[in-house]
Amino acid sequence: MAPGSGADAVQAPLVMANPSAQFSLILRVELERRPGTLGRLSSAIGNAGGSIGTVDIVEQGERHTLRQLTVDCASEEQWREVAAAIEELDGVRLIERTDRTLELHRGGKIFTGLKTPVKTRDDLAMAYTPGVARVCLEIAEDPARAREYTIARNTVAVVSDGTAVLGLGDIGPEAAMPVMEGKAVLFKEFADVNAFPICLNTHDPDEIVATVKAIAPTFGGINLEDISSPRCFEIERRLKAELDIPVFHDDQHGTAIVVLAALKNACRLTGRRLAEIDAVMVGAGAAGVAVARILIESGVRSIVACDRAGAIHAERADYLDGSMNVAKTWLAEHTNADRRGGTPAEVLEGSDLFLGLSGPGIVRPEDLARMNPEPFVFAMANPNPEVLPEAALQYAGVMATGRSDYPNQINNVLAFPGIFRGALDARATAITEEMKLAAAEGIASVVADDELSDEYIIPSVLDRRVSRAVAEAVEREAQRDGVARAAGAAGEGGDSGSPALEGTPVRAVGAGLTPAA
Amino acid sequence: MAPGSGADAVQAPLVMANPSAQFSLILRVELERRPGTLGRLSSAIGNAGGSIGTVDIVEQGERHTLRQLTVDCASEEQWREVAAAIEELDGVRLIERTDRTLELHRGGKIFTGLKTPVKTRDDLAMAYTPGVARVCLEIAEDPARAREYTIARNTVAVVSDGTAVLGLGDIGPEAAMPVMEGKAVLFKEFADVNAFPICLNTHDPDEIVATVKAIAPTFGGINLEDISSPRCFEIERRLKAELDIPVFHDDQHGTAIVVLAALKNACRLTGRRLAEIDAVMVGAGAAGVAVARILIESGVRSIVACDRAGAIHAERADYLDGSMNVAKTWLAEHTNADRRGGTPAEVLEGSDLFLGLSGPGIVRPEDLARMNPEPFVFAMANPNPEVLPEAALQYAGVMATGRSDYPNQINNVLAFPGIFRGALDARATAITEEMKLAAAEGIASVVADDELSDEYIIPSVLDRRVSRAVAEAVEREAQRDGVARAAGAAGEGGDSGSPALEGTPVRAVGAGLTPAA
Repeated sequence: MAPGSGADAVQAPLVMANPSAQFSLILRVELERRPGTLGRLSSAIGNAGGSIGTVDIVEQGERHTLRQLTVDCASEEQWREVAAAIEELDGVRLIERTDRTLELHRGGKIFTGLKTPVKTRDDLAMAYTPGVARVCLEIAEDPARAREYTIARNTVAVVSDGTAVLGLGDIGPEAAMPVMEGKAVLFKEFADVNAFPICLNTHDPDEIVATVKAIAPTFGGINLEDISSPRCFEIERRLKAELDIPVFHDDQHGTAIVVLAALKNACRLTGRRLAEIDAVMVGAGAAGVAVARILIESGVRSIVACDRAGAIHAERADYLDGSMNVAKTWLAEHTNADRRGGTPAEVLEGSDLFLGLSGPGIVRPEDLARMNPEPFVFAMANPNPEVLPEAALQYAGVMATGRSDYPNQINNVLAFPGIFRGALDARATAITEEMKLAAAEGIASVVADDELSDEYIIPSVLDRRVSRAVAEAVEREAQRDGVARAAGAAGEGGDSGSPALEGTPVRAVGAGLTPAA
Repeated sequence: MAPGSGADAVQAPLVMANPSAQFSLILRVELERRPGTLGRLSSAIGNAGGSIGTVDIVEQGERHTLRQLTVDCASEEQWREVAAAIEELDGVRLIERTDRTLELHRGGKIFTGLKTPVKTRDDLAMAYTPGVARVCLEIAEDPARAREYTIARNTVAVVSDGTAVLGLGDIGPEAAMPVMEGKAVLFKEFADVNAFPICLNTHDPDEIVATVKAIAPTFGGINLEDISSPRCFEIERRLKAELDIPVFHDDQHGTAIVVLAALKNACRLTGRRLAEIDAVMVGAGAAGVAVARILIESGVRSIVACDRAGAIHAERADYLDGSMNVAKTWLAEHTNADRRGGTPAEVLEGSDLFLGLSGPGIVRPEDLARMNPEPFVFAMANPNPEVLPEAALQYAGVMATGRSDYPNQINNVLAFPGIFRGALDARATAITEEMKLAAAEGIASVVADDELSDEYIIPSVLDRRVSRAVAEAVEREAQRDGVARAAGAAGEGGDSGSPALEGTPVRAVGAGLTPAA
């Protein structure tokens, strides 16, 4: 997720108020077999703030029962409190506790799946030598056929150098891997796109560009991720220019697309037009630039972007003396034409949309009172929003965050799986601005008119219809834009089903073969 | 496979004498429903040289039956003969024919498998944000923990620049992909090692080294493949020096290991010692160097290597004038101490082992008559051996090839899956010479004394015991050599089973957790 990862991101402590799966434990507990023991255990855990999920019996002994419980907590501190509470109980012994999230990541989250097993000599002769040589020759004759006969057809690289990971900053390529693997999981789960994490042991834009170009023959698309600003701009620009497959910096464009989708539906709900929206954006990193750009492309006329120093405009000292970074320079030149100055709280006066791409506490809830009536407040910093919905709701007409535990979660996962699904199905050479706009419309369209409400302007991240709607919109737009290499045949993609020969019609293909009819 | 891919490889036509799965067709045929039609169809296909596999009914109509047949042929020409024979039949109509091998490769042969699905918000909170941040921080604190919590624990890159693919030569990175994917399939199938193909759009050794170093954080090992000589030597040497994960050029070392395994068992069968063996090797590419080296390390004292110009030695004109390439120079300096000259046929005089790593027709069967009694003939050129077993068997005591349709198939797939399984389980920083020797012994050991025969000196490529024996031998040797980072716990590896928490004991792990006892 981009929010919080921009240049101006504030490092926030990773603490949440409520028990959640992220701090889930597995506890193995031995209980004396007498009435009430389990009840006392449950109470103790609950009183310590833990929320019990499943309870299983591992072993039933004569005098003891070994049980396994999952317990959600709110923090690592609470783990210790829960453990201490259990240890105080009579007739209960805590045998083992396991961090469920860490355990889930053990050994990584993805593996190599095989479309066809290799059990016989015939399997080997077709999947490998000698049969594979014929497939190689097909592609050698026309490298474009790699899109037909290799994983490039349906595989995306998730590339990061680990410099701007979540809100954690520059944690290095090894530490970035769990996020990139997670992204690969989401690509597969939501859009049947195969994705593979590539974490780079270099920060140098030239080396990053050279590396991605070198490995490109393996892939059908490149998803750039968590690369810090301003390097991300140059890297994406150069790769887009030099590769003939889609290159997409998700922190920028994924965020921009989901924000636009949410804004479109907020407007639809309240009968406003994008052209009427006065927006104030806090956070002037890579995501901020992309959001501002897509809003402008969509007709929003008034945007004021702020960084720590306040509103950005073309008369600010750091713009005039050339010390402004490339992202803010772009914003100074393309937003805030009136050159309004002031703090975020000040420029919120008379605005309709607050866009938070920064960190917690940037504005006070009462600052929102200065906005126009029933404003839209998209406070997307993760994990802690710029303003908490509890406090903001008395002012906001529509409230959205990046979090899953409030309504209206604005999350990139709504965008990137479907976008690459559509681009791969179209065999697109690029992801155009129009395809991004189409993706936003695709997300927005999933919420029907009669479903739309202030608590439902954006579909759930788990809504399976979203990636399909996005993919279809993106593929259609790719055809229109002339970047599609495949003839329109929506829904071609994916590969999780059975091999082509089981249950689906076979076609006459390949070297030396002419249709038999 | 390395044989045939060395610098001196001879381009051989991809034609085999017998019907085989590599030229397998799927035919859809409409047959009139009257007695004898299927019989006539079967005869026609058989007479045209096709070998029928499965026969299924796709659709049963009132007057016609639509059937689907698989038919193995010997060549693409025979496809046309089979089709023509069918079209001549009365009451039979050929609807469609499909190249089964190409079809199997459609869309690639591997996909992203997910260890745990993402179906609920809790799944998302653990596999991705916000929970993933804790895993990132664990690794940021100690990057070595990436071997614990990312796919690097069990994932190998199969890296090629497409310059020496099979016997096909420099066919480019896109066309090399089906082979590298096939390799990834074999890694998974035989040793539960996740492997991912990386085909590089550059021939430059500096760029290849830089690229592999840049992407290394993703992987637990690097398998170099089908990179032409002499660049492969420098690339492997530099990567071994600069990375702390195993780097292994399979064309060299995989070939060397399986050849040594076969030779050891041939000696065991015939009561000879390696030190007694006089070897003649034809083919002086990368594989030749590696084979010569491992034989020398194993005690073979006499090796004469030949290229097209004959025996290589340190008094040959091209050695003396410095025009010899690096591979041959190495051979000139490390083999043929007696500086014997002559053609392969001439130097075969009085030898015990013929090693073919070149192309078909390099020696005549009758040349083998000059060898010592009951010689070993390993004619490993693919697909067409230096001498065909039919012709060689009257001279040879033990005959081996690279082919699956003769006894004693010497194939790299016996080596590389188990080697990386063992190296990953040991978390080895390198694959040492001793680990290679251990791997060869592991392969050889699978054939028991009482099973050993002139037709069974090397286990089948489909024998599941092989990779396990190799992995255990390699892991043990890694511990002994001091390159293992993991404590000895053979059989740790793999990930195809259920997630760690289902059915296996859980352990106390992770930040801030101390064992509860």
